[in-house]
Amino acid sequence: MKSIEKLEWRYATKKFDSSKKLSNTQLDILKNTFNLTATSYGLQPLKMLVISNRKVLKSLKPLAFNQPQITDCSHLLVICIKTDVDANYVDSRFDLEKKIRGTSEEIVAEFRAFLKKSIDNNSPEEIEKSAINQAYIALGNLMTVCAYELIDSCPMEGFIPQKFDEFLNLSNQNLKSVLLLPVGFRAEDDGMSQLKKVRSSLDDSIISIN
Amino acid sequence: MKSIEKLEWRYATKKFDSSKKLSNTQLDILKNTFNLTATSYGLQPLKMLVISNRKVLKSLKPLAFNQPQITDCSHLLVICIKTDVDANYVDSRFDLEKKIRGTSEEIVAEFRAFLKKSIDNNSPEEIEKSAINQAYIALGNLMTVCAYELIDSCPMEGFIPQKFDEFLNLSNQNLKSVLLLPVGFRAEDDGMSQLKKVRSSLDDSIISIN
Repeated sequence: MKSIEKLEWRYATKKFDSSKKLSNTQLDILKNTFNLTATSYGLQPLKMLVISNRKVLKSLKPLAFNQPQITDCSHLLVICIKTDVDANYVDSRFDLEKKIRGTSEEIVAEFRAFLKKSIDNNSPEEIEKSAINQAYIALGNLMTVCAYELIDSCPMEGFIPQKFDEFLNLSNQNLKSVLLLPVGFRAEDDGMSQLKKVRSSLDDSIISIN
Repeated sequence: MKSIEKLEWRYATKKFDSSKKLSNTQLDILKNTFNLTATSYGLQPLKMLVISNRKVLKSLKPLAFNQPQITDCSHLLVICIKTDVDANYVDSRFDLEKKIRGTSEEIVAEFRAFLKKSIDNNSPEEIEKSAINQAYIALGNLMTVCAYELIDSCPMEGFIPQKFDEFLNLSNQNLKSVLLLPVGFRAEDDGMSQLKKVRSSLDDSIISIN
């Protein structure tokens, strides 16, 4: 199946077959996909929860307007932003780079100083806004890899982040929930999967300047 | 090559081989990929420019801090948000759905009324913020499809959107530029392509609740 056929196959799956679960291999792919997401300056201001505990999912469902995909999916991915992205955090990223790549301090010093200054000059709101943008990149990346792997997913902004944070004790871990992506496998009788996609024509979506 | 190998292959390509150009088939894949991006309520508050005109790219380069990938890439993708997303726009989307799916007004009426009311209750800033979020989903989707198709790309927030909008007459088209994605093929001598990826360990990036 080619790329476009995979993307055409994807749809926001609201009716999952709750008896079908992702294999460990599939889960590993999604965890690595999240971790390989490109982020601004490689800062990875993100963390992801992977929830399969049925009791937890049942408690989360009313905090997402009782949408059935929360409990019928195989796993619920919760994309979170980190709330402790500051100059110290930037330092930890450069230390990680030095460890992984063996880069010398001499080479990273200038960029390190630039990024720390830039973080110091940004308001907490600006830092949070940028992290949220990266969460959406991760969502796009995950949905697309799901499609290639023939895993169904449902991107969701429709939940009460503060209530999720409270229930999952996220503020203690310097995290805030931003987006949900239930993953699993579509129910065979989900009529939605057969509907044509509603999209603008390419002529309306694309402007070419040749 | 499996999904994770593809994502490992991807990197933010700053040095393109300017002699290598995308084929029309590859361009079609990227145009369709953009158009198939999942967006909130399916509203597609986005449009994409695909620029290959060398004169235009040369003029845009200084508006992106003279970064060489603007002129060395095969095509520059400019992801824009629409600035005319209002109740009339919502109407046009439901008309599109009725046309494509043959859905009756009876079936869409309630959701149409809900979305129009919701758009009317949002401030222009909130509507713009939501559209920007969708632009980041498109970026994630495009980067990932590029990786699967072995097309190189470089996600860029580093440019002056207002200057781009001015030069490209975007406000006349009710558009604002948000993100750039130069696409093409890495230069063979780009040392960056050989560097190990700097990423947190999976243990640091993922919290499993089983």
